[in-house]
Amino acid sequence: MPYMNRALALGRQAPNDADPNPRIGCVLAAADGRVIGEGCTQRAGGSHAEIMALRAAQAAGQSTQGATAYVTLEPCSHQGRTGPCADALIAAGVARVVAALPDPNPRVAGQGFARLRAAGVQVQTGPGARQAFEDNIGFFSRMVRGLPWVRLKLAASLDGATALSNGQSQWITGEAARANGHAWRARASAILTGIGTVLQDDPLLNVRHASAARQPALFIADSQLRTPLAARLWQTPGRCIHICTTVDSAERHAPYLAQGARLHVIPATPQGRLHLPALLHTLAALEVNELHVEAGQRLAGALLQAGLADECLLYLAPLLLGPGRGLADIGPLDSLAAGVPLRFHAIDRIGEDLRLIARPPERDKFWAFDAAGRQQ
Amino acid sequence: MPYMNRALALGRQAPNDADPNPRIGCVLAAADGRVIGEGCTQRAGGSHAEIMALRAAQAAGQSTQGATAYVTLEPCSHQGRTGPCADALIAAGVARVVAALPDPNPRVAGQGFARLRAAGVQVQTGPGARQAFEDNIGFFSRMVRGLPWVRLKLAASLDGATALSNGQSQWITGEAARANGHAWRARASAILTGIGTVLQDDPLLNVRHASAARQPALFIADSQLRTPLAARLWQTPGRCIHICTTVDSAERHAPYLAQGARLHVIPATPQGRLHLPALLHTLAALEVNELHVEAGQRLAGALLQAGLADECLLYLAPLLLGPGRGLADIGPLDSLAAGVPLRFHAIDRIGEDLRLIARPPERDKFWAFDAAGRQQ
Repeated sequence: MPYMNRALALGRQAPNDADPNPRIGCVLAAADGRVIGEGCTQRAGGSHAEIMALRAAQAAGQSTQGATAYVTLEPCSHQGRTGPCADALIAAGVARVVAALPDPNPRVAGQGFARLRAAGVQVQTGPGARQAFEDNIGFFSRMVRGLPWVRLKLAASLDGATALSNGQSQWITGEAARANGHAWRARASAILTGIGTVLQDDPLLNVRHASAARQPALFIADSQLRTPLAARLWQTPGRCIHICTTVDSAERHAPYLAQGARLHVIPATPQGRLHLPALLHTLAALEVNELHVEAGQRLAGALLQAGLADECLLYLAPLLLGPGRGLADIGPLDSLAAGVPLRFHAIDRIGEDLRLIARPPERDKFWAFDAAGRQQ
Repeated sequence: MPYMNRALALGRQAPNDADPNPRIGCVLAAADGRVIGEGCTQRAGGSHAEIMALRAAQAAGQSTQGATAYVTLEPCSHQGRTGPCADALIAAGVARVVAALPDPNPRVAGQGFARLRAAGVQVQTGPGARQAFEDNIGFFSRMVRGLPWVRLKLAASLDGATALSNGQSQWITGEAARANGHAWRARASAILTGIGTVLQDDPLLNVRHASAARQPALFIADSQLRTPLAARLWQTPGRCIHICTTVDSAERHAPYLAQGARLHVIPATPQGRLHLPALLHTLAALEVNELHVEAGQRLAGALLQAGLADECLLYLAPLLLGPGRGLADIGPLDSLAAGVPLRFHAIDRIGEDLRLIARPPERDKFWAFDAAGRQQ
């Protein structure tokens, strides 16, 4: 599947302001196999990958009659700024569409394919399905589960210390790992942190060491509304700050609103904390696909113990620090069986460090698809 | 270098009772390229790899005249039970010897090559040098540094817990990782543990889940001579137990000697602990090449902080346990720079777990060799 692999690579090149749309790639191949056009999703409200590929072919004077379109997701059938992609492919004389996956939105899934087939276009699904799913796992999660894909970013020494007991943590991991972490921030729809981290570290939590067409929104889990109005996180231009709180008081909201923030009142738990499932459903309603969590032990531990963290993105530095701050407040446990079980999804070296992606068992199976990419 | 790679593979197949000799492989190739004989080091006192390969060729009726011998270490020039290998190769009419590395023992290095050259045998060194060194790193360490290669075996959850606070630790890692750990035990000349682990866990510390021609010796760091005479570690037949202690008392040694143990009186530190460098030099004098350390936080931390651990063999289970027992008692540190820096040497998945081999920077460079395998 060289064409589909190329389409997948194009999809990953889509700008991060395509969000909350999925980042899709498209390759148009002529009947003789030549690639005559390529494209990827543009910023939200802009053109989809298929339209970009068709335009590229036209601009190069290439005929699209009888061509095959390789797309990483089912072409849309709804009216956007540039019209439904399915209609554009039909109008361009495309003979065959190979799509990695159907649209996960149960209300529209299959309609694009149906439209193509009704116009005599041959449709095949399945090639590249697993990778297409991974590349837009947040979009699939929001569409299928009504929840963002919650990625917990952690960085620690090999013996699990995220900071010394005195709080020192800069820098345990190396430059390459930090830049890589920023690329994951950029990819996400939003970053979530906890008020503890804001008060303790006064972080910027924006994308600096990676390219980004837009700064992801920042959500602060701040049950008692204690975010300082002078914190450094307000300094990033053009980035929306959302404060999630249990405090339902127009008077207390006012200074934050004046500073441009958006406030979301979230139900409280009996302990007065934010109800985390409610928080995540709120984020999904705000079209957050991938949620990048950079928080302290407490919020990390709460998400993990509640089974709400879908993925740990863990950078381990080849360094031993002895007792210090841990990765996540869990326990103390009575038995090993009470721990949070994960499965390694990916293991990579990033500079001198190690990057692990680990997920709860079967967590990424919420969208089961067969060899043809059909949902099962 | 297919012949040398095969010779390296044969060397790794040598039985673990070849120890304290290096585990060497040899391939004999005829002038037309056919492999006419193969061999590896036999149990200590038995034949070396070259002799085994020559015998295999003879047994198969193959002429060794004009053959090339690929060996993972310089053929010996000293009188052993089967005579010097260099002489045997000469007598067999071997025309050329390709050796990965010269003998690291400064008193004999080069003498085997000189003997071969004097008899008109062509000698080449260098191919496979790095791997040959790794496969016998303990032998090289003892010969060059006068110290065993100290491998610290650790197993922990992803957040660095080796046990829960209540002591529960069976099993954090999976079966495959445990079997793999036993293969590393088997490979070592000896296992070292601390009295804390003996008293707390009453472990067997033998090879059970991997094949072994002999059980490696067990050394117990027991400064105050507290090893219980009824501990389970005495139960392994045919395994020598060595107790390293600061207690120099024939009366207190007697019951251990009666139980078949060997006792070594090691100098004490001002704090009454074992002087670890002295301990390691004693082990090297006892011909320990690779030392496999399975100990608790205290001994592990002491070895690491003293810079005496050459390698961490760390199994990480995809599991979060929160605060528990840590990998090593280090610190509390004032600054990150005071941590123990390592470099990842190898990263592998073992079953569901992750196996990391990490070494202090440049630690494995004690035997610098050029492209021809010559020590620099």
